[in-house]
Amino acid sequence: MLYIIGLGLGDEKDITLRGLEAVKKSQKVYMEAYTSLLSFGLSADGLSNLEKFYGKPIILADREMVEEKAGAMIEEAIHNDVAFLVVGDPFGATTHSDLVVRAKTLGVKVEVVHNASVMNAVGICGLQLYHYGETVSIPFFTETWRPDSFYEKIKKNRSLGLHTLCLLDIRVKEPTFESLCRGGKKQYEPPRYMSVNTAIEQLLEVEQKHGDSVYGEDTQCVGFARLGSEDQKIVAGTMKQLERVDFGAPLHCLVIVGQTHPVEEEMLEFYKY
Amino acid sequence: MLYIIGLGLGDEKDITLRGLEAVKKSQKVYMEAYTSLLSFGLSADGLSNLEKFYGKPIILADREMVEEKAGAMIEEAIHNDVAFLVVGDPFGATTHSDLVVRAKTLGVKVEVVHNASVMNAVGICGLQLYHYGETVSIPFFTETWRPDSFYEKIKKNRSLGLHTLCLLDIRVKEPTFESLCRGGKKQYEPPRYMSVNTAIEQLLEVEQKHGDSVYGEDTQCVGFARLGSEDQKIVAGTMKQLERVDFGAPLHCLVIVGQTHPVEEEMLEFYKY
Repeated sequence: MLYIIGLGLGDEKDITLRGLEAVKKSQKVYMEAYTSLLSFGLSADGLSNLEKFYGKPIILADREMVEEKAGAMIEEAIHNDVAFLVVGDPFGATTHSDLVVRAKTLGVKVEVVHNASVMNAVGICGLQLYHYGETVSIPFFTETWRPDSFYEKIKKNRSLGLHTLCLLDIRVKEPTFESLCRGGKKQYEPPRYMSVNTAIEQLLEVEQKHGDSVYGEDTQCVGFARLGSEDQKIVAGTMKQLERVDFGAPLHCLVIVGQTHPVEEEMLEFYKY
Repeated sequence: MLYIIGLGLGDEKDITLRGLEAVKKSQKVYMEAYTSLLSFGLSADGLSNLEKFYGKPIILADREMVEEKAGAMIEEAIHNDVAFLVVGDPFGATTHSDLVVRAKTLGVKVEVVHNASVMNAVGICGLQLYHYGETVSIPFFTETWRPDSFYEKIKKNRSLGLHTLCLLDIRVKEPTFESLCRGGKKQYEPPRYMSVNTAIEQLLEVEQKHGDSVYGEDTQCVGFARLGSEDQKIVAGTMKQLERVDFGAPLHCLVIVGQTHPVEEEMLEFYKY
């Protein structure tokens, strides 16, 4: 059996009892390491918090490992119980459909243990999940690569009066440009997590380029940091206001507010800039 | 402190450790009873499973109680720890913003414990949560009341190639028409939960009435029953096919499939009719 287990958004206490049971009976426990490990008290040299909590070792599976060695993990799951831990929900912002398809194709039983994901936990700000349009991703701009396909999607959402959840870029274990060119042993960039501030800066740059007045400095937004953690920070304000707020440590995400109902506005008041 | 705690979608084991801790330290535990109690082993005359599990009594709070007596519950939370349990996530399909606003206005601290909700757990079928448009609700039609505002929303989603999550009507503790007219002690209709079959029947009736070819008998959909439970049932097929499927006990929901990516299609294959 391959258990794919959502850990939720906060720390080790956000696993469900069902998830914890599955971890306890698994012979091997893997954990995907490419969304965020920060909130789980993990560091590059150890998984101490979670391992102590579960009483068993965890194999950290970064993006390369999941893509390249998933086959081995799935084979283990033919005869053993194997747990694959995922921050948030297994089918939330980062989906693990590939893994499920590969496992099921090999006849391995898969059980998914759901949990909260950024996709539903943003509901806490009071904007109803019903009234969201398509979710967009904002990638880090570079000198030469400034993709802005999110602009058209935000435009459509706003024309329908819908809110837009913006997922902000995470760069973990990206090979350096030099090591890619040179070949040989890969070297990696330090991890980078996009802040609300950078996201807004990029959004405003794209608006200026296209000029369709989809949004602007005065557009109402909600910025989130460490959503679901005990020290989460949620601030509602205009783009101009939020661009100046220090949200602190990652992960961040951003909601561009569409048309609001009175009950949504009442909730937003508690988070006002 | 008022804890608003999501129970997730399955049974008593789907609460998070954080949620369970909060329940254990609360002096009073309420539970909202108007979404679904079925999966939690509750019956009209007792809350046995959950109460046994928590080792303390639970006060069942139906819609009237939450609306009328929330004030008393919030006042208790000024000096005590009070837990309010919610099926799914506190800000999922049924939102509890009202309660939060009232509590915060009275200066009561509120802590939300997130969990999986139908809004993110539908991701298990392989259709990416990114590619959903606005969520719609399908109400039970009556002889004289056949509201179809969902049709325009589905139309917009489909014109953008997006998937549509349809939440299906739940009628719990609805006063009978007679008792409303007569006044005095209220009497209630037996609970009703809309099936995938009824939803499709109503959807097709509305399409026939409007005739904009937004969808039809051959439109791909995914039907879900008891999502997140051990005996969940997920079937992908055309409206015509799913109309004939027996999904069994509630709760049901339905997704109308938009444009799909290859990896989405691979996952759907596992659920094909």
